[in-house]
Amino acid sequence: MEHSGNLLFELFLMFAGAKALGEIFERFRQPAVVGELIAGVLLGPSLLALVHPSELTEGLAEIGAIFLLFTVGLETKPRDLLQVGWTAVQVAVLGVALPFFLGFLYLRIIDHSMVEAIFVGAAMVATSVGITARVLADAGVLSTRLARVILGAAVLDDILGMIVLAVVSSLSEGKVNYISLAIVAVEAIGFSLLVIFFGSHVVRRFRPAIARLRARNAAFALSVILCLGLSLASLYIGMAAIIGAFLAGLALADHSEEYRLQESAHPVMEFLAPFFFVLLGAKVDLHTLDQPGLVGMIIVVCLLAIVSKLIGCGAGAWSLGFREAVRVGVGMVPRGEVGLIVAGVGLSLHTISDAIYAVVLTMSMVTTLVAPPVLRMMLPRLPAAGAPNARGAADATPPAERPVAT
Amino acid sequence: MEHSGNLLFELFLMFAGAKALGEIFERFRQPAVVGELIAGVLLGPSLLALVHPSELTEGLAEIGAIFLLFTVGLETKPRDLLQVGWTAVQVAVLGVALPFFLGFLYLRIIDHSMVEAIFVGAAMVATSVGITARVLADAGVLSTRLARVILGAAVLDDILGMIVLAVVSSLSEGKVNYISLAIVAVEAIGFSLLVIFFGSHVVRRFRPAIARLRARNAAFALSVILCLGLSLASLYIGMAAIIGAFLAGLALADHSEEYRLQESAHPVMEFLAPFFFVLLGAKVDLHTLDQPGLVGMIIVVCLLAIVSKLIGCGAGAWSLGFREAVRVGVGMVPRGEVGLIVAGVGLSLHTISDAIYAVVLTMSMVTTLVAPPVLRMMLPRLPAAGAPNARGAADATPPAERPVAT
Repeated sequence: MEHSGNLLFELFLMFAGAKALGEIFERFRQPAVVGELIAGVLLGPSLLALVHPSELTEGLAEIGAIFLLFTVGLETKPRDLLQVGWTAVQVAVLGVALPFFLGFLYLRIIDHSMVEAIFVGAAMVATSVGITARVLADAGVLSTRLARVILGAAVLDDILGMIVLAVVSSLSEGKVNYISLAIVAVEAIGFSLLVIFFGSHVVRRFRPAIARLRARNAAFALSVILCLGLSLASLYIGMAAIIGAFLAGLALADHSEEYRLQESAHPVMEFLAPFFFVLLGAKVDLHTLDQPGLVGMIIVVCLLAIVSKLIGCGAGAWSLGFREAVRVGVGMVPRGEVGLIVAGVGLSLHTISDAIYAVVLTMSMVTTLVAPPVLRMMLPRLPAAGAPNARGAADATPPAERPVAT
Repeated sequence: MEHSGNLLFELFLMFAGAKALGEIFERFRQPAVVGELIAGVLLGPSLLALVHPSELTEGLAEIGAIFLLFTVGLETKPRDLLQVGWTAVQVAVLGVALPFFLGFLYLRIIDHSMVEAIFVGAAMVATSVGITARVLADAGVLSTRLARVILGAAVLDDILGMIVLAVVSSLSEGKVNYISLAIVAVEAIGFSLLVIFFGSHVVRRFRPAIARLRARNAAFALSVILCLGLSLASLYIGMAAIIGAFLAGLALADHSEEYRLQESAHPVMEFLAPFFFVLLGAKVDLHTLDQPGLVGMIIVVCLLAIVSKLIGCGAGAWSLGFREAVRVGVGMVPRGEVGLIVAGVGLSLHTISDAIYAVVLTMSMVTTLVAPPVLRMMLPRLPAAGAPNARGAADATPPAERPVAT
């Protein structure tokens, strides 16, 4: 009873803190998500120590991220994603190659070991799409070409990042098994393409069966089952669970209005996503900055991480014009939890030092905190916060999703 | 990564299993909630062992129960509850006194110790309102006098149950502090009455402030903060968290349409509540039935638990007429997790034996599984499952809650 009270208190603080700081940041015309991250930094172990990573908070954060990407997927129709396919491929490939190369090169120049250099490069590779998706969704631009390029590239980026992580992990264990590596890559790419190309058709096939279900709000229940199922599938293939959730949303996007899925999925996301962002903030360890001599290295790695995504992804999106290319570059900057995962693997395999771990951690945080305000500033036709039409967005559901079917 | 995959797999099984068995039970015209409980029994440690009580599943279950009672509260206006006040008090008092007395008497007759007799009596006291609330909500009768009497009595019941538990715990420690006991009781009753009488007025005061908020769906966020906050408050006072959640819903019920709170809270409840019911089922330990000589005692205790609530609560609701009184009695039968908590306290204080623990556990399960189908059978104007108007209920929101305000 006492224990359960403490956990509930932690959840209360996370949610209330996220919403309070989100509101304050909105008032200063900054993205609410940055407020939620800062709430996490304040409540986390390095400052107030009221919120801790635990099985419950980690679990809620993961489900929150899953629902976030699921709702983003629901607003992204597969054919729209395929239209930007080639651009997204270029953005992803260049946005993976350049950060890896620059990170690797810098570590070698300052005389670190080969393995450490490869790990830092790998940690600089994968974009955390959750942050950017939230900024795009809050600004109401998810249906733009910009958002589609970023989301498409993020899916590929995660596949490439997974391959790099697999290579790196096996490198540090001594040898690389190219065959199993190829199998994993083919599985991931095949799985994503299958869902993008055929998901919507399969869902359509099940419409008569869904109409016969007797449970309350059965379509929403089924969509959640698909979401959790594909999240698991992509976890087993070796990708992040959120990629599966995004793909599930994508498969259902064409039927989202018919079954009023957004209306149901949005409130769940609104309740759970703050736990993801607050926990991400809580993992920021401010003490890493104390280590002597590290500050210079941290600054260089952060700059390289930002510049490499800006130039790499920007070059990949060059066909969209300079302004759009820069926006894509900024949108791909946040590393979020993905960098942390890579660094965690390196630390657990004893292949990187505590100092390097701190550098990667800080790089993850800085890119995550810096990108959203810059991206928001650059976004076109952003409704000014507090303006009457922004108030209209206070509804749980976009107008197009209101009761059409019954 | 592997660990997180296993947890996600468990959540997937819980949700999908609940929905699948819920659907099957609906087809046999049984309450879906019984299907969800059975899904838990099947998936739980005593059979398939795929779902376990853990920090994450317990936490999700608790938040699920909180949202369940919150949505029930949102549909219950304070003045409707006060109208049935006196009847609810009679139902609660008689429904607590008779089960305690019969349980105590039986254990003494078969020569168990005084403390064990008191513990079994105490475990037979408190109704688990979650189960009944769900059956009433699924049948669409939350606005009836029957539902109000049951919900009102359940709040009082929890307060009385808490006092009994406090007495029992201090008894087993040697002495009873009547003063601190009285303080706790006054706090709990005062807290509940305060929210019931003034909650709605206080919420009304905050309307201008809410209108100035800039965050998306800010009213829903605030309502969740209130819900978690009052849940915590009632936990600290010594009541179950779900009573606070119910009170929070009650305080917001008059404004629920204005802010479209049901539309947002319902999907969250639909996603999280299955974890509560599945975990409740998973805690059913079928091995307890193996213990030799216990079966007779289990049968007697189960019968006493059912009959005592039927007669005690039925007598309290006598003024409503015979049929309604019986329905109230059946609605108050499930003991659910409350009996388990009392038994758990007894076991942890080493004041009851494993055998008695098994008896109480089984009593909790049996009353929980038996009451919903009987109650549903007895409910008036129940739309036949599968009939066209039942399909209409597939919407996340009751018709009265559709977009009125914007």
